[in-house]
Amino acid sequence: MSEGIAIITSGGDAAGMNPAVKCAAEYAAKHGLKPWLVYGGLNGLIQDKIVEADRLLVSGILHRGGTVLRSSRSKEFFEYSFREQAYQNLKKRGITKLLVIGGDGSFRALHQFYTDFGMPFAGIPATIDNDIAGTDYCLGVDTALNMIRESIDSIRDTATSFSRAFVIEVMGRHCGYLAMVSALASGAEICLTPEIPYNLDSIGARMKHQIENEGRDFILAIVAEGTKMGDYVTRWINDSIGMEARLTVLGHVQRGGSPTVYDRIMAYKFSVAAVESLISGQENAIMVYRKGAFGHLPISEVCDNKYEMDPSIVRLCKPLSE
Amino acid sequence: MSEGIAIITSGGDAAGMNPAVKCAAEYAAKHGLKPWLVYGGLNGLIQDKIVEADRLLVSGILHRGGTVLRSSRSKEFFEYSFREQAYQNLKKRGITKLLVIGGDGSFRALHQFYTDFGMPFAGIPATIDNDIAGTDYCLGVDTALNMIRESIDSIRDTATSFSRAFVIEVMGRHCGYLAMVSALASGAEICLTPEIPYNLDSIGARMKHQIENEGRDFILAIVAEGTKMGDYVTRWINDSIGMEARLTVLGHVQRGGSPTVYDRIMAYKFSVAAVESLISGQENAIMVYRKGAFGHLPISEVCDNKYEMDPSIVRLCKPLSE
Amino acid sequence: MSEGIAIITSGGDAAGMNPAVKCAAEYAAKHGLKPWLVYGGLNGLIQDKIVEADRLLVSGILHRGGTVLRSSRSKEFFEYSFREQAYQNLKKRGITKLLVIGGDGSFRALHQFYTDFGMPFAGIPATIDNDIAGTDYCLGVDTALNMIRESIDSIRDTATSFSRAFVIEVMGRHCGYLAMVSALASGAEICLTPEIPYNLDSIGARMKHQIENEGRDFILAIVAEGTKMGDYVTRWINDSIGMEARLTVLGHVQRGGSPTVYDRIMAYKFSVAAVESLISGQENAIMVYRKGAFGHLPISEVCDNKYEMDPSIVRLCKPLSE
Amino acid sequence: MSEGIAIITSGGDAAGMNPAVKCAAEYAAKHGLKPWLVYGGLNGLIQDKIVEADRLLVSGILHRGGTVLRSSRSKEFFEYSFREQAYQNLKKRGITKLLVIGGDGSFRALHQFYTDFGMPFAGIPATIDNDIAGTDYCLGVDTALNMIRESIDSIRDTATSFSRAFVIEVMGRHCGYLAMVSALASGAEICLTPEIPYNLDSIGARMKHQIENEGRDFILAIVAEGTKMGDYVTRWINDSIGMEARLTVLGHVQRGGSPTVYDRIMAYKFSVAAVESLISGQENAIMVYRKGAFGHLPISEVCDNKYEMDPSIVRLCKPLSE
Repeated sequence: MSEGIAIITSGGDAAGMNPAVKCAAEYAAKHGLKPWLVYGGLNGLIQDKIVEADRLLVSGILHRGGTVLRSSRSKEFFEYSFREQAYQNLKKRGITKLLVIGGDGSFRALHQFYTDFGMPFAGIPATIDNDIAGTDYCLGVDTALNMIRESIDSIRDTATSFSRAFVIEVMGRHCGYLAMVSALASGAEICLTPEIPYNLDSIGARMKHQIENEGRDFILAIVAEGTKMGDYVTRWINDSIGMEARLTVLGHVQRGGSPTVYDRIMAYKFSVAAVESLISGQENAIMVYRKGAFGHLPISEVCDNKYEMDPSIVRLCKPLSE
Repeated sequence: MSEGIAIITSGGDAAGMNPAVKCAAEYAAKHGLKPWLVYGGLNGLIQDKIVEADRLLVSGILHRGGTVLRSSRSKEFFEYSFREQAYQNLKKRGITKLLVIGGDGSFRALHQFYTDFGMPFAGIPATIDNDIAGTDYCLGVDTALNMIRESIDSIRDTATSFSRAFVIEVMGRHCGYLAMVSALASGAEICLTPEIPYNLDSIGARMKHQIENEGRDFILAIVAEGTKMGDYVTRWINDSIGMEARLTVLGHVQRGGSPTVYDRIMAYKFSVAAVESLISGQENAIMVYRKGAFGHLPISEVCDNKYEMDPSIVRLCKPLSE
Repeated sequence: MSEGIAIITSGGDAAGMNPAVKCAAEYAAKHGLKPWLVYGGLNGLIQDKIVEADRLLVSGILHRGGTVLRSSRSKEFFEYSFREQAYQNLKKRGITKLLVIGGDGSFRALHQFYTDFGMPFAGIPATIDNDIAGTDYCLGVDTALNMIRESIDSIRDTATSFSRAFVIEVMGRHCGYLAMVSALASGAEICLTPEIPYNLDSIGARMKHQIENEGRDFILAIVAEGTKMGDYVTRWINDSIGMEARLTVLGHVQRGGSPTVYDRIMAYKFSVAAVESLISGQENAIMVYRKGAFGHLPISEVCDNKYEMDPSIVRLCKPLSE
Repeated sequence: MSEGIAIITSGGDAAGMNPAVKCAAEYAAKHGLKPWLVYGGLNGLIQDKIVEADRLLVSGILHRGGTVLRSSRSKEFFEYSFREQAYQNLKKRGITKLLVIGGDGSFRALHQFYTDFGMPFAGIPATIDNDIAGTDYCLGVDTALNMIRESIDSIRDTATSFSRAFVIEVMGRHCGYLAMVSALASGAEICLTPEIPYNLDSIGARMKHQIENEGRDFILAIVAEGTKMGDYVTRWINDSIGMEARLTVLGHVQRGGSPTVYDRIMAYKFSVAAVESLISGQENAIMVYRKGAFGHLPISEVCDNKYEMDPSIVRLCKPLSE
């Protein structure tokens, strides 16, 4: 019986998880491992929802959003007894390696699992927030950005038809990446994020100047969820700038959608890197993409550090916060 | 000098306004009228933003959302002195007919204008709410529905990945048309609208039954804005049904987007009907589409009656409110 | 055991088949029939690929293009012995009624089946060509039109960037419906179809006039497959009009895509009508949509007549052929 | 009078040109240069279609495909006398720098212009073929790939509904980049490009094995335009593999479409780099993106070398050619 590898999606869902699952399963099989799929995230490990990855199960999933393996947040996995159950479920099938596609919480959980039972894993960073340390890119971000773009391009139709301001809140509890890139990509006038200090007085003066002197007759403002400024800024544009303003909270529309080409290709490359790292004997490595190349980092460097925003994006965005 | 016809978009913007403008201008020119474009809605009439509709101005607009003529809500138009100014602006250019694309508020305003100065108009109903009496269809509805569909299809990816309930609030202050059709088109389990009485107890029982007996592990609920039930239902699903629930308010994303084929073709047919009604001497007729055919109604029948919801849609939707 | 109804998709695939399958299965179950799904079209009847329609099989299919039941062209079904095998497969499961979603060829095949074994069917017209007699609409047409629209809107970007002519061939072997509606919806300058006589000389003169006098610097021409004029017109624009021209044959891109809202709702209404017609004892009725209402026709009226093109579309399109 | 910089789009149009124009104009203005727009590519320089880049001209273009500045192939620019005319047109406006967004042919033309008149330029590589030496990325590629993806995802609906093979020809006369990435991103079974030697015998054996043993019932094959194998492979699948096959030539659909977020952001970064290189006194530098970072290369390194395909893509694609 060939050695088994179990593939799990865990944490918040992100576009690109499905192509990563498909590619990891196929690449593992081609290189002598027997791939298994875990349904329902870490809970699925405990509940023994582990199925051999035959061709039909990974066929026709490449272009679908979310994760067909489903995900979950598992409280039980924090308890040793449940983890031991999970271990027995893997052991009885000859599974000796794990590949997890998810966020840093999931990586930590599997590191604990490794400490308990010595079963190594490889991690593929996937979260639309793009806030995992050590990698320039997390799976799902490009798709989320393009979903946001389509929404904003649609709102712009109304904004330009009606001389209105639209405030659009995008996801990102601690990280303004989606907000910054969306603001640039949509030509927004205002962008508020946790990372860049903003000054409403100067923003207001800039807007009024453009309205009075340059014929500006609509405003797009992008606000990161984490600033909690959506409502406030909307009222402020109404009251201080004097342009009728509306708030749209994009919500979970941002999470879905068929993965873009970029996310599908990144899924392939991340998966190949992850399977190869496991085959080569790496333990608990997190795959990272930095400066245009793939590599891996020990879990501590990923989970104990804070993500740093791309300085070139910050630099381009700064004028929108001033 | 040939007789002039001025084309105006007024009220909330809707997809399909641009193809209607283009077609009306071209069709009018072909039939001996000289077409003019009014920028900025009724305000534009007062402020004399009236431009000859040459080929370049109506070229390349067919596929764009919103209205390139821009719209507005005009308080000034309620005053006789401003209306007279508008009349002078039209008269000096030899404009003797108006074509307005908008909602019933705009029709009423132009009817007052007719009472004052005897200038006839034709109206094309355009509003994404689909709540104008006498017509089965208002321009913009199909595009709005497809924008909503894409958003819900995206949210569904997340819902099915994660065992969650999503409550989605769609536009419609007095009318549940968008909510009902979207609920059917997205296979939602729950739909709450102003028109159909709903019973949360029986809905809850139905959901629990499916969760316990049929493996249901996600819920999509569509709520019309006018019910003001978005927040309440979201908490209620959380607390009473016991499934983690999130609310998404789709907002102005619904208004924009490139017009669908249906809206482009309806725009053509409505425009042709409107120009022909003016040429044939009809005064103040509102174009309507009923039972698959175009016709027109006197303004009183449109503005003094309440829209009636398509009973076949109500019938299909009823089980989602029970 | 309750009476069974088997649902089949047959002939060329069309968007809307999946929502029709889902709705028919659910509506039949609600009204006391036991729904079955036939996989692989008429061949599936013969090969006994008939499965009970449980909730999971019709879940998550509403938004998918094509047909999850798959389709086929079956030569075997022309032979009595194979049809008898099909009959036995139905009989042993207690299936007494058939619902077929497809084109007139499929309707004829099932009518033969009825003549042989007395098993009644109801038909839902589904084909992107919109060329079935007696109904104004066939399932799948709206989605195909919107797929074409998106392709043409994309090509237009290049056409306007580069002073070029683009000839676009759309599907329709005997019927110019897709070509005509697409030409209107995309603001094309030229449209060639089997139905409307066209005159290249006058078209050429019209184009040259616009190029020389009105600044026209690109041309969009839509050609129906059935005219076989794609290549010829492309060369003709190059040589006679003197504008660099390119041909794009849209091909099977037109067939796919997530069903639009219109197709989903029509699928619902067609399915309800079909199930109700079977329950009420109608035999071999074809559901039709005419003048905004649903009804049904005896199969002879559908299969022995030629489809007539919507005259209002022909009228709007005629100037593009002159 | 501040120094002028003229912005030109030249060669085949590509998505991302519009955001590059907008950003370059705004960034130049902010840094003390006076931006001008050249309409109609190099021909526009000769014909004096040079306009001051005021806010309205670069507003509302960010999300539009193609190039609003329009492009052209200019034979006249090969002649010194026309180039001198172009130079006079620039000189009389105080324009001393050029920024060109296009391919290597355009870079060569402007290098000749520099040799003649000493006017320096900066180049931004833009072509959907991604075949310019020295840069990992050319503007427009991501949008083209996603347009292709949507078309293939649509065709897949039909392929899986009907047990068919689809051969899809994508652009790329000398370069298989679009074909390779599209094949990976769509999970194609077969990929033929100019770069990777392919073996139809072994491909045929692989397909037959999967059809007979693994239930494969459809095939997607992606073929690069440059191989000229589209027709041949389609017939070969029909005849040798025995599965009904259809060819779709995607054509100019690939060129258009609203720029993706990736192309918009790359447009920003390329533009900033280009304006900065001109300000810093660089002459005739081509902006390049390599290993995740921006830089620039002398024109000779770009125009005298052949593009090298990303080896990680080649490696992932090789199994599809065997």
